[in-house]
Amino acid sequence: MTEHRGEAEARERVEYIASRDPFIKTLGIRLVEAGFGHARVAFTVAHKHLNFGGSCHGGVLFSLADTAFGLASNSHGALAVGIDTHMTFSVAVREGDVLTASAKEISRTRRLGIYRVEVTREDGALVAAFTGTVYISSRTIDEQGGPR
Amino acid sequence: MTEHRGEAEARERVEYIASRDPFIKTLGIRLVEAGFGHARVAFTVAHKHLNFGGSCHGGVLFSLADTAFGLASNSHGALAVGIDTHMTFSVAVREGDVLTASAKEISRTRRLGIYRVEVTREDGALVAAFTGTVYISSRTIDEQGGPR
Amino acid sequence: MTEHRGEAEARERVEYIASRDPFIKTLGIRLVEAGFGHARVAFTVAHKHLNFGGSCHGGVLFSLADTAFGLASNSHGALAVGIDTHMTFSVAVREGDVLTASAKEISRTRRLGIYRVEVTREDGALVAAFTGTVYISSRTIDEQGGPR
Amino acid sequence: MTEHRGEAEARERVEYIASRDPFIKTLGIRLVEAGFGHARVAFTVAHKHLNFGGSCHGGVLFSLADTAFGLASNSHGALAVGIDTHMTFSVAVREGDVLTASAKEISRTRRLGIYRVEVTREDGALVAAFTGTVYISSRTIDEQGGPR
Repeated sequence: MTEHRGEAEARERVEYIASRDPFIKTLGIRLVEAGFGHARVAFTVAHKHLNFGGSCHGGVLFSLADTAFGLASNSHGALAVGIDTHMTFSVAVREGDVLTASAKEISRTRRLGIYRVEVTREDGALVAAFTGTVYISSRTIDEQGGPR
Repeated sequence: MTEHRGEAEARERVEYIASRDPFIKTLGIRLVEAGFGHARVAFTVAHKHLNFGGSCHGGVLFSLADTAFGLASNSHGALAVGIDTHMTFSVAVREGDVLTASAKEISRTRRLGIYRVEVTREDGALVAAFTGTVYISSRTIDEQGGPR
Repeated sequence: MTEHRGEAEARERVEYIASRDPFIKTLGIRLVEAGFGHARVAFTVAHKHLNFGGSCHGGVLFSLADTAFGLASNSHGALAVGIDTHMTFSVAVREGDVLTASAKEISRTRRLGIYRVEVTREDGALVAAFTGTVYISSRTIDEQGGPR
Repeated sequence: MTEHRGEAEARERVEYIASRDPFIKTLGIRLVEAGFGHARVAFTVAHKHLNFGGSCHGGVLFSLADTAFGLASNSHGALAVGIDTHMTFSVAVREGDVLTASAKEISRTRRLGIYRVEVTREDGALVAAFTGTVYISSRTIDEQGGPR
């Protein structure tokens, strides 16, 4: 199987996973691109996502980053479960802002994977920087109801 | 002003904040109790909060903890903004589970506050352990539209 | 085997581990007490541990917390390896201050353990709050040269 | 003042800071390069830096990353104090390994700065990924005894 075929398979798997995730739909997160160990999602902040101060709720920003992390870490086909996450918040985000979260793999062994995610605003400002670790189980996404 | 009166004022302020937070309503998070530097919220996991594997999405668990953190850190009246969060995930949570997040202040200086939050399931199992830091601005909640 | 015997065995194991750790000796960290899933160490800050500003270097504070974490997580006999740590810093520490780091287990499954550590100064002030996750390998401490 | 002159001034300031830091000397950390918002340090692992299992102690790896973080965040001239750090550990490091830690600024406002640090082994393997936040005080490095 060529590298190209592999990337297409990973993208298909991530699309399948994203399509079956109720909370991704609840928030309205859109998958932009994906492949082995990486994924990018986008999101538009609505009034219902704000906190009492009128900024986007930290939980929404985290959910966006965590979704990119979950898709990237499950792109290989083995079920990966988030065990640890860290996130810093740099700038406030308002209603109507369009955000992008890009996850990339920085380390992956048999049982553990580490990912970094950057959340940016449409003007390029860094909104949040996320790091997450997954435990890679011996189950595959397919056994979870995946494409094959 | 007695200590008792202060606690009541802090609880009132947190109730006011929670009532004005659109995302708390979007998720259906309920305020259970609050005072100076602490807050407890509860939440019932519905289908729309699940991830593709059928567990509660990490973003939902984080949102619950982050809400308790935000309420506890704003209970003093100065506007506190989350700058850094860490969360570990211990057990999977399913549809119908009732979760509680309890935040307590472990350090507070003029400009920085640190809070720890535990998310537990109704059977007492620790679901997630959260630590968050806020930057305490010179604005008060009142200027944000608070009770006074 | 009674609970009491188990605690004594865990304490013996931790004492053995601590006695074989070159960096614990390099820094001069002292084991105070230990048992299944918990450990407490103490340390006196010397001039060689300071940073350029005259406070205790963050790396020294982390090393103290990380040592308590490593001892507590290896107290069960299976080799546990740190994979993720988070630490907040609350107050500055000076030369001559005596610090204590206390680690306790907040979650442990077959492959993952989560620990929280508090570093305090002799006046009781919270210096640092640490959270760490270990991956529990299938090797035992004994194979690493442990007591049995 | 040209950009070039500014970079030279930042490098000089970092060299000065590093030369006055007792713990950097205690560990034997070497400054490789620095400028506004970035710094790179190197370190050779000796026997005294190992843990009981024969790997480099987590506290040593953290100290290396934290040093790069401290130098990069103080390169602007305002005294920056670490308030929050996160670190993941990917591969074991042995006696004799040469490590490099590179810190870069990912966000900086008037009061807060966020830095990411990568620790790598001489074969290019990622050893640890670090994120740190500083609070930027109103004191300057000069008042701390800096170059001017």
